[in-house]
Amino acid sequence: MNFSSDNVSPICPEILAAIAEASDPALPYGADAASQQLDQAFSDLFGKEVAVVPVATGTAANLVGLSALVSPFGGVACHHQAHINRTESTGVAFYGNGAKLLTMEGPSAKLLPETLDTFLTRENTHGMHSVDPECVAITQATEFGTIYDVDEVQAIGKVAKAHGMKFFMDGARFANAIAALGCHPADITWKAGLDVLSFGATKNGAMAVDAIILFDPSLRGRVEKARKRGGHLFSKHRYLAAQLLAYVKDDLWLRNARHANQAASALCQSLETLGARAAFTQQGNELFVHMNDDLAERLRKAGLVFRPWPAVGPDAFRFVSGWNSPIEAIRTLPETL
Amino acid sequence: MNFSSDNVSPICPEILAAIAEASDPALPYGADAASQQLDQAFSDLFGKEVAVVPVATGTAANLVGLSALVSPFGGVACHHQAHINRTESTGVAFYGNGAKLLTMEGPSAKLLPETLDTFLTRENTHGMHSVDPECVAITQATEFGTIYDVDEVQAIGKVAKAHGMKFFMDGARFANAIAALGCHPADITWKAGLDVLSFGATKNGAMAVDAIILFDPSLRGRVEKARKRGGHLFSKHRYLAAQLLAYVKDDLWLRNARHANQAASALCQSLETLGARAAFTQQGNELFVHMNDDLAERLRKAGLVFRPWPAVGPDAFRFVSGWNSPIEAIRTLPETL
Amino acid sequence: MNFSSDNVSPICPEILAAIAEASDPALPYGADAASQQLDQAFSDLFGKEVAVVPVATGTAANLVGLSALVSPFGGVACHHQAHINRTESTGVAFYGNGAKLLTMEGPSAKLLPETLDTFLTRENTHGMHSVDPECVAITQATEFGTIYDVDEVQAIGKVAKAHGMKFFMDGARFANAIAALGCHPADITWKAGLDVLSFGATKNGAMAVDAIILFDPSLRGRVEKARKRGGHLFSKHRYLAAQLLAYVKDDLWLRNARHANQAASALCQSLETLGARAAFTQQGNELFVHMNDDLAERLRKAGLVFRPWPAVGPDAFRFVSGWNSPIEAIRTLPETL
Amino acid sequence: MNFSSDNVSPICPEILAAIAEASDPALPYGADAASQQLDQAFSDLFGKEVAVVPVATGTAANLVGLSALVSPFGGVACHHQAHINRTESTGVAFYGNGAKLLTMEGPSAKLLPETLDTFLTRENTHGMHSVDPECVAITQATEFGTIYDVDEVQAIGKVAKAHGMKFFMDGARFANAIAALGCHPADITWKAGLDVLSFGATKNGAMAVDAIILFDPSLRGRVEKARKRGGHLFSKHRYLAAQLLAYVKDDLWLRNARHANQAASALCQSLETLGARAAFTQQGNELFVHMNDDLAERLRKAGLVFRPWPAVGPDAFRFVSGWNSPIEAIRTLPETL
Repeated sequence: MNFSSDNVSPICPEILAAIAEASDPALPYGADAASQQLDQAFSDLFGKEVAVVPVATGTAANLVGLSALVSPFGGVACHHQAHINRTESTGVAFYGNGAKLLTMEGPSAKLLPETLDTFLTRENTHGMHSVDPECVAITQATEFGTIYDVDEVQAIGKVAKAHGMKFFMDGARFANAIAALGCHPADITWKAGLDVLSFGATKNGAMAVDAIILFDPSLRGRVEKARKRGGHLFSKHRYLAAQLLAYVKDDLWLRNARHANQAASALCQSLETLGARAAFTQQGNELFVHMNDDLAERLRKAGLVFRPWPAVGPDAFRFVSGWNSPIEAIRTLPETL
Repeated sequence: MNFSSDNVSPICPEILAAIAEASDPALPYGADAASQQLDQAFSDLFGKEVAVVPVATGTAANLVGLSALVSPFGGVACHHQAHINRTESTGVAFYGNGAKLLTMEGPSAKLLPETLDTFLTRENTHGMHSVDPECVAITQATEFGTIYDVDEVQAIGKVAKAHGMKFFMDGARFANAIAALGCHPADITWKAGLDVLSFGATKNGAMAVDAIILFDPSLRGRVEKARKRGGHLFSKHRYLAAQLLAYVKDDLWLRNARHANQAASALCQSLETLGARAAFTQQGNELFVHMNDDLAERLRKAGLVFRPWPAVGPDAFRFVSGWNSPIEAIRTLPETL
Repeated sequence: MNFSSDNVSPICPEILAAIAEASDPALPYGADAASQQLDQAFSDLFGKEVAVVPVATGTAANLVGLSALVSPFGGVACHHQAHINRTESTGVAFYGNGAKLLTMEGPSAKLLPETLDTFLTRENTHGMHSVDPECVAITQATEFGTIYDVDEVQAIGKVAKAHGMKFFMDGARFANAIAALGCHPADITWKAGLDVLSFGATKNGAMAVDAIILFDPSLRGRVEKARKRGGHLFSKHRYLAAQLLAYVKDDLWLRNARHANQAASALCQSLETLGARAAFTQQGNELFVHMNDDLAERLRKAGLVFRPWPAVGPDAFRFVSGWNSPIEAIRTLPETL
Repeated sequence: MNFSSDNVSPICPEILAAIAEASDPALPYGADAASQQLDQAFSDLFGKEVAVVPVATGTAANLVGLSALVSPFGGVACHHQAHINRTESTGVAFYGNGAKLLTMEGPSAKLLPETLDTFLTRENTHGMHSVDPECVAITQATEFGTIYDVDEVQAIGKVAKAHGMKFFMDGARFANAIAALGCHPADITWKAGLDVLSFGATKNGAMAVDAIILFDPSLRGRVEKARKRGGHLFSKHRYLAAQLLAYVKDDLWLRNARHANQAASALCQSLETLGARAAFTQQGNELFVHMNDDLAERLRKAGLVFRPWPAVGPDAFRFVSGWNSPIEAIRTLPETL
């Protein structure tokens, strides 16, 4: 039972099959038939016309997507714990031609609307000496496994728009969020004023694809140029498309996410039974717990793999479940330990 | 018979099987077992200790690899027709933090050593106003399908080193070049002074992987940081590794390339029989021919797909064969047309 | 008699006096009274409302000004000999966030409209793989001392606009060009479709100031941000303004330029009398001649300072006159040598 | 009495005279005699061989200087209030090719050595996902007018070096700091492990020049290339040199700074007499006070110019004195109000 990352799980069977089936000759660089279906598939999913630009990694989806929403002189307002701030090297400045991250604190890795409002009021100087925020970015689910509910996303979107900001969402675990919230994908995206979404698939069963969803399709040209320049335009683009089409077909993305969320929920219960304490309310597929070294050692001996997480606390650990986590074995963990 | 690009062909069976087999849980970001074998596999292949940094596209391999060999104030000397100059957007300056392409002409898209020598003598001012060349880059096979022989690569390497330059090779079709030359991979790489090679696999049977080969392994840290920042570090890195390991196992890379080269050779003969004229000596899997519109039309009606290539001439066309091109059908083309 | 560069001459008296007189307390960063007069002064000079953004060097004026006219994925079409291509390091890509120089040849360092037309037709692919030109840049007077006449500039502007390009002029020696042509500054700028002019003063009597002239004042915000980020926003901005106001007052800029042009004309005559041959028709303050080593040596012994110029030929030399060149001594050079 | 910024004061007479005297022909770009004396003059001043690279603005000195100490993937650890973080646009990432600011808090805009130690221990992951700090930057005097004493600078330098960091100082008001501390310039620079100092002159009597001081002269080549690319290489370089030579001659820099510091001290006393309260201990030429609106209004009516400073508090104001502030009038302010 490896909970060290969602990335330890392999391709899920449906997506592997889709890759295997894409065996006819096909035009490169997105001119193939599968790629041509992406816009429609995601427009259906979101209930609005969108443009889709797929790339192979979540970091690329974030960086290329964000680059369309901020000038070389502007800032991206986000939580200090944001993946784009903590785990993507100097990528935001790289793709953003200098654009800077402007960070805030907030409970359980979430931005609070009122904190954001104060921040934007103070930082937006309309001057040229400082870096004015031009975009607000949130992560859904957050880096601490928590999930903004519909009202929270809409409140943040409202504040962002009131200050003239663009609005970006790092949705590496978007599926887990939707599965947990039970809402329509529209509710926490374009209906909340979102401009660009990084729609994750790699962590949730795909081999390597995340989709940049442009709720303003006119951004496509700029994003495609940024993608090409960054070396992210696949020649055999059909294999990105095949993964994504399989991923959204018959709600595979939600089924995989629900499975992972349930596994995390079961794990949370099992660990609490064993004496651990959840650091945050478990909602998606990431679970952070406080526990003592003895318990950690017992779990390791039982074959569980997981990581200490000092950002949450000296006795904190992170467990991440996936589309293929063994829920039954997780449930019975307390008895079998 | 689609000859519009090597990228129209699908994954070859051996590589698809390798992807399917990589189904155990595995550590992310290159810490998995398959990724850990890459250095050894390629060190064996080149007969020298190398460091391997895989990425998913040829453009990424070129841009990230080159970025380790040139400063933000320096230039990359190359042929005007080079892919890095003509077909990779402003990527060299992007990953090179401003580094500039300095271009020369030369017959059949090849740099001549004496042209290079004159160029470097003139352009390397050792000053701060101009852009001094710091690296020489060639493409093997070239953008016009021609192939530098061993002596030519070594002569260019010698000139480059005499001027204190780094030496880079865009090897998107490196396999086709080796298959055509019949030499050891070492002969046209580190034995010719090469510092970094972009070793292509995507065009020759892989789904999406090209390897940056560092003949100076101490470059690894810098290249890995550039890869991460560019969004090219795969979380499920094993799938890049699995493709590459299958690609070099039992000489699959050479078998695929030989097939493609033979298909191009057969196509050259068939087209010449039909009245076309090769623009350059066919050596690898790219074939450029001059032909009249009537012939082009007849070929199209027979189901051949190919592209006009104005850079070679107003009556020029490009045909690219692949690992799965139907050689027998190509041979009998004149009879069946 | 130092002809090695226009930069060997000191500040001219009128501008030094203006610096000395700016001794009252003044608001920083352009909020002072002198700075506030710049837009009006240059709007009067050009007969059109313009926005003026002064910087301290010609390279900064070119790079910051150009950066407003090209995207990170686009190209700047110019002559191979252009200062921005040959003598400004990797500055265009730096300020242009990756933007690339796309170069052409042309006689005496001039772009020909028909060459430009062919070039733009071929290079503007409207695609994402290549670098499409977005801006045309010319130097007036050119790097070989020649000067586009009014018709030539207008023809280039027409071609540029027909292809949807922005139009930029490096006017480091704009004063010399206007002095030679005798036309109104409007004729070779906004009336020819020019978007941005780098208006030189440093080479023509100022201490250190060149003005970025925006014929589209709406570009001001972007240009001012680029200036600040580049470190070119003066705190004691009044000293840039004072220089520029003195420079354009009572036609000082034209008087200085006429003097320099006359000096170059006299020098051309004197050198031809002595056996040299002008490489190009002398028009402004730069003179390129072919001469033998004996003559060069005699001139050096007589105290003349000048530089060999291999880009023009192995026996070529450059002489640059300034606002304070001793015309009478130049005239009598043949007798006194 | 204008206390809105040190930049409201004009050139001081000695420096204006030096500019006026530089009237002979001189070689451009630093090859002139005055420029050639800079290294020696500053090596004498610091008691150690240094390389000097002058630029025209403090922002340029900071950005170009810092760029030599951090890679495109690295971070610069500094106080949140640092000028490089708050007031230089996205310049650090621009000149640093993506380098990122990593900020800490600390009392009165000062970094505490122990805070820095904890920060560097936590942030330096030696990994490629996050941005590892590579350089520590402090401002002396700080943005809140406070001054690190010799022990504090040395303690910070020691922590920086223990973590393998480079060490940079923004010395826009370095003269005020040395004047206040009464120490040798060496004590808070190279003897504390400093690598690069931005040595300010513009705020303290010069027209427009700050010097990048390289305590490791081998950095010169890289810094000069960055300066040229940034458009900061003056053609009439002598005028930068003339200002700097006059500035350090006969301790003019210290005399000017002592005057400004005394004026600030007198102002602090006068304002406290009138009911204001110093926000921080006044040490240099910047004074921050809390006062009520009535007093502020009375001061404004008496002709004083100064600015509210919300970063210090809602009732806080900043006063900055200069080399020419009228000390006697400041002293008698309470009586004359």
